[in-house]
Amino acid sequence: MSTDLTALETLHLDASSLPEVPFIPYSEDVKIKLLRIDRASGQLCLILKGPPGAEIGRHKHYGSVTLYTIKGAWRYLEHDWVAREGDFIFETASSSHTFVTEGDEQVEVFAIVEGALEFQDDDGNAIAIEDWQSMYQRYRDYCDEQGIEPSDVTELNEVPVA
Amino acid sequence: MSTDLTALETLHLDASSLPEVPFIPYSEDVKIKLLRIDRASGQLCLILKGPPGAEIGRHKHYGSVTLYTIKGAWRYLEHDWVAREGDFIFETASSSHTFVTEGDEQVEVFAIVEGALEFQDDDGNAIAIEDWQSMYQRYRDYCDEQGIEPSDVTELNEVPVA
Amino acid sequence: MSTDLTALETLHLDASSLPEVPFIPYSEDVKIKLLRIDRASGQLCLILKGPPGAEIGRHKHYGSVTLYTIKGAWRYLEHDWVAREGDFIFETASSSHTFVTEGDEQVEVFAIVEGALEFQDDDGNAIAIEDWQSMYQRYRDYCDEQGIEPSDVTELNEVPVA
Amino acid sequence: MSTDLTALETLHLDASSLPEVPFIPYSEDVKIKLLRIDRASGQLCLILKGPPGAEIGRHKHYGSVTLYTIKGAWRYLEHDWVAREGDFIFETASSSHTFVTEGDEQVEVFAIVEGALEFQDDDGNAIAIEDWQSMYQRYRDYCDEQGIEPSDVTELNEVPVA
Repeated sequence: MSTDLTALETLHLDASSLPEVPFIPYSEDVKIKLLRIDRASGQLCLILKGPPGAEIGRHKHYGSVTLYTIKGAWRYLEHDWVAREGDFIFETASSSHTFVTEGDEQVEVFAIVEGALEFQDDDGNAIAIEDWQSMYQRYRDYCDEQGIEPSDVTELNEVPVA
Repeated sequence: MSTDLTALETLHLDASSLPEVPFIPYSEDVKIKLLRIDRASGQLCLILKGPPGAEIGRHKHYGSVTLYTIKGAWRYLEHDWVAREGDFIFETASSSHTFVTEGDEQVEVFAIVEGALEFQDDDGNAIAIEDWQSMYQRYRDYCDEQGIEPSDVTELNEVPVA
Repeated sequence: MSTDLTALETLHLDASSLPEVPFIPYSEDVKIKLLRIDRASGQLCLILKGPPGAEIGRHKHYGSVTLYTIKGAWRYLEHDWVAREGDFIFETASSSHTFVTEGDEQVEVFAIVEGALEFQDDDGNAIAIEDWQSMYQRYRDYCDEQGIEPSDVTELNEVPVA
Repeated sequence: MSTDLTALETLHLDASSLPEVPFIPYSEDVKIKLLRIDRASGQLCLILKGPPGAEIGRHKHYGSVTLYTIKGAWRYLEHDWVAREGDFIFETASSSHTFVTEGDEQVEVFAIVEGALEFQDDDGNAIAIEDWQSMYQRYRDYCDEQGIEPSDVTELNEVPVA
């Protein structure tokens, strides 16, 4: 007769150990370091890296996106502001925009993405949808190609409740 | 020099006062009673009603959906179970399914929908996307047609913090 | 070299099969049917049942609460409205109130509770905190007492991605 | 007959313009740069800064916390790992821990906090609770003291839907 509860352990990831996966076919240059996927809600935690001149085509988000700019400068073609090191961005559900890096520095952004990204053509029509499944598949395909053991970014360890 | 905080008031909606809006073009028979939209996260709270024989075509959700079956019986063509009065359903992100009512009773379901619905053709390709904006626009168009004053389902009232 | 993805299966719960657990020590009469616990976010899905004259003492929520009134009538002593069958309530983070049933009918409410409940004395001081762990422990203790096999309300089944 | 929809605009905050508010009474040294409060869900987005030797007493979270380490090194006394620049941490609901900075560098952490923090004595009893309201009040009190105009960190601007 066991009634011992288990909780989910706090996760710590050493960022330097994680692979950087090209964000193909949406960008030639942008790379994604996948940190965590919640398969129930579809939430993605990731770090996006882009060199000077990188771009991600126009896309729409169906949930919110919370961003922190770790390094460099970037903007959305649809907005007047430029995000610089330390800047915070909160994108609301159903917003859409085109990402470009600014200046001559490498850009790094930490992002928490809820829901899917819908990539759009010039008329705003959906041409592709990126969700947790396609993001995770790309990560695992890349690990296979590179002979890296993929992490299970979807699971948290169980621990007894103190 | 005012530092009085305001909070957002608890919302109470008298369900009998709310319009039931046809879920066109996705169903001829299903009606949606829109309760609340969170424009930051894209979350929708609603009641879905369908008569015997009603159907909503195959669609995919990019966030989770939490459902409570108020009345009647329904199922998804892709699953073996039938949901009956009182049953609880939790749909995970990127799940997809085709809704049909069962039996000869009116069906009512309370739903909390995160993110967008992607309607699909028989090959699983996206043919339409329904998000908080299209849902709200349908509601407001219907109110206009019927000469009903639409509620602002996106706002909560401000109240002083006690 | 396996790169087969797994998703989390849609959950269907037959409500009639679930135990109703007394909400002791917060109420003598109110019972809780626990539906789902998300151990990462702390979200609770449940059905609350209370007979005429039932009460839950003043408490504060640190996340939002979304409610649908299945049956009967109830109110919060701090508000003017009465919630009746079919009514929808959305409670914002850091709101507080005292629950009482109204009239002579059994009350049933479906609730999605984010975060913890802080029970308060007459001066608004915290006297007890109810979170997913204490809620789950109460459920499991009750199952042990009654000789019922407890469900694992924290897990979703894995399924291959189609 | 207006049916023009409005959405909530993407928020960009220039981090260098934001005040750093002492996290009194929980720490003498730690400062909080408040970025955004969601008054419906209670979510807080913030940057936490602490010099070498800084500490935040043992506390429990009733929702999840997502962290990115911008600079420096820190740990929780209850865990074996040390978080360093670039590291990612995900804390689950009802976890508790004591924060200390490590080494001789200034620490900066970006955090998304769901729900409240419960500060605890050595026996795990609640001694104080910090929620969006107390966090916002501290920010506004500090702005008043310093003669700074406080930002409204709770509101997003309205924009027409394109």
